[in-house]
Amino acid sequence: MSSNPSADEGSIVKIGVLGRGTVGSALITLLEERADVIQAETGLRPVVSGVLTRSLGNGEGIVDEADVIVELMGGLEPAERLVRRALEAGKPVVTANKQLLSRRGHELFPLASANGAALRYEAAVAGAVPIVRVLGDTLSATPVERVHGIVNGTTNYILTAMAHRGESYAEALKDAQDAGFAEADPTEDVSGSDAAAKMALLAMLAFGTWVSHEDVDFTGIDKLALEDLEFAREFDLALKLVGTAEKIGDAVSVRVHPMFLPLSHPLARVDGSYNAVTIESPHVEEITLQGPGAGGVPTASAVLGDVISVLHGADEPKHAWQTLPKAPEVLSAFYLHFDVDDEPGVLSEVAQVLGLQKISIRSVAQKGAGGAARLVMITHRAPESAMEAAIGMIGGLGFVRGEPRAIRVFDEENA
Amino acid sequence: MSSNPSADEGSIVKIGVLGRGTVGSALITLLEERADVIQAETGLRPVVSGVLTRSLGNGEGIVDEADVIVELMGGLEPAERLVRRALEAGKPVVTANKQLLSRRGHELFPLASANGAALRYEAAVAGAVPIVRVLGDTLSATPVERVHGIVNGTTNYILTAMAHRGESYAEALKDAQDAGFAEADPTEDVSGSDAAAKMALLAMLAFGTWVSHEDVDFTGIDKLALEDLEFAREFDLALKLVGTAEKIGDAVSVRVHPMFLPLSHPLARVDGSYNAVTIESPHVEEITLQGPGAGGVPTASAVLGDVISVLHGADEPKHAWQTLPKAPEVLSAFYLHFDVDDEPGVLSEVAQVLGLQKISIRSVAQKGAGGAARLVMITHRAPESAMEAAIGMIGGLGFVRGEPRAIRVFDEENA
Repeated sequence: MSSNPSADEGSIVKIGVLGRGTVGSALITLLEERADVIQAETGLRPVVSGVLTRSLGNGEGIVDEADVIVELMGGLEPAERLVRRALEAGKPVVTANKQLLSRRGHELFPLASANGAALRYEAAVAGAVPIVRVLGDTLSATPVERVHGIVNGTTNYILTAMAHRGESYAEALKDAQDAGFAEADPTEDVSGSDAAAKMALLAMLAFGTWVSHEDVDFTGIDKLALEDLEFAREFDLALKLVGTAEKIGDAVSVRVHPMFLPLSHPLARVDGSYNAVTIESPHVEEITLQGPGAGGVPTASAVLGDVISVLHGADEPKHAWQTLPKAPEVLSAFYLHFDVDDEPGVLSEVAQVLGLQKISIRSVAQKGAGGAARLVMITHRAPESAMEAAIGMIGGLGFVRGEPRAIRVFDEENA
Repeated sequence: MSSNPSADEGSIVKIGVLGRGTVGSALITLLEERADVIQAETGLRPVVSGVLTRSLGNGEGIVDEADVIVELMGGLEPAERLVRRALEAGKPVVTANKQLLSRRGHELFPLASANGAALRYEAAVAGAVPIVRVLGDTLSATPVERVHGIVNGTTNYILTAMAHRGESYAEALKDAQDAGFAEADPTEDVSGSDAAAKMALLAMLAFGTWVSHEDVDFTGIDKLALEDLEFAREFDLALKLVGTAEKIGDAVSVRVHPMFLPLSHPLARVDGSYNAVTIESPHVEEITLQGPGAGGVPTASAVLGDVISVLHGADEPKHAWQTLPKAPEVLSAFYLHFDVDDEPGVLSEVAQVLGLQKISIRSVAQKGAGGAARLVMITHRAPESAMEAAIGMIGGLGFVRGEPRAIRVFDEENA
């Protein structure tokens, strides 16, 4: 292959590491520990030739000296500039930077191809879970219909704490921060934005189409209430932040939302900071991969796997990239939760609004509590736009107290 | 790479298919359906140049004409002769033949290396689940401690029917045969021998050591009783046929036995004919892969993935094969079931025998039923040889009726 790093000093291959956070430090240790094994397997001995930290090092110089560049800085700049520099010089790049790829991939992947340079990113999605390898290589000739994923460990940790320990969202978030599973500013994770970037990358791999972060609809977990998790427990469901990438006709829909899953679904029992991805295809039915979604050593192991893959010198898959439109409409089943005045006619008015939007109801439970009542419904699948309109109208009815809550429900219809 | 098939007629690559059962037929269809995609990705267009069936075709001629050989016949001969012929000619071989590789791998893998020919076998273990790729490539530089697997779909189908529908072993076996999930002669599957072959291959990949089918201890599921599954339900356990490959010091233990798993274990909820494998490593914690373990199209998809991988022309990993001894002793916790006369002193005599073998008891339940009683115990971990000796002695006590039953129990101690 053209991007096979030249072993100009005997069998040495120089690795330039950009970024020395948790993952970067773990990688440098692993490269030293496993150098013998890697040399036995690939014929090349990796040596770290330069490390860029926040305060030390010259990024351009490190890129120019190294044979293989590992980018672990995150964010757009200066990561983008250095990755471009490496690719333009035909040097293979291994990155864990989902923000960069989901926002600049439409330029960076062609740049890599044009220069015959590998651009690998196993660690950018689901940490040590080898989903990029499996979707991109193993299943590259398999038509994929749908990918579901729990791809953000922070939110899964929080939802697990709420479900198992009965903690409120605020308590569970604080726990996650104390345990190092959530940042001081958790917005990127709890808003669903991080998961959206990862699902964009998985959609690219699954469908061979460009998907940018802006094409992904996402809702986070910060509006979920303990009541919603109690509902899940009562009806043998799990409440998870689920990313979905699916092909609908010749269009693609990529989205991230909280979702109720039946306990028999392979994602339902993925707990704590673990990640998992389910691939559905008529050819392979359903394949699920599960493992640690974060952590320095697991993520560094995924990076190391990419480095070894580069040293093996496989041809890069020549993706026949296409541009598929975003699906105009998605159908989903919903759980609806309304706090209402306990008075006659409430249920019939709500049902009437749903009927107007052609949304049919699967089940209803109404519970009085003094002057207030709680109305919980599960609907059949309906267009999300119709659901949004109906919820807006119901929210405006005089007897509705507070904000209505709507959470998607996985069912066999959208399995 | 040296084993890159020569595209001597423009971009055509000739595929010789040995065997046209369910998987072979599905593969031929997939190769035609996906030829455009494969050509776009690899630059080579696959064309089936010959098919060997039981009654038609000349195996040697097909091997000599093709650029890539796909062996789907199963069994030792004539598969071994044809695979050797291909490898000696430096031609890449893709096979799903676990019997062949687990019995002749110690000769075939070096033969492949010596001739610079790829020898790939994703479909030989767990059907469409990409465990060979993940263990052999992605995690090739990751030190693996232990692999657990449900790698036989037939037995998992039978155990699921017993657990969920309360069927006896004989009824569930008949169901599996009617549904096409078990052969008319099910011995290879229900004895654990098929799973043993697959675990030998996984142990080779995980530990880089030769493991032959003869090195694997295995027990099947044909002695399990509905009572054992009722016990599982009562104590929130799953009863599965579990393969284990683990490194114990500088030795390796590979074995297949029925095992009680806690419901929180990733393998506990793998039902029906699905397979799953869990990889444990200090570097990646625990990664689980799950999917269909059999079926023509899923298995053919795994074969196709190997063919594409060969066309990409990656270097084959140069395994630093070693020969690790078989671990002399394995520790396991056990569930013990004795039908006994309901008379005083029974429990104390049984406990005394266990004490002699230094086996400590975690819990005991004794239930009288007329003149008979049932004694069920869970032990702590103990050497399996001590357990075997104790069970032999207890079986010889005058008050014990019928055969004692002993089933391994997964616990945190051997997690």
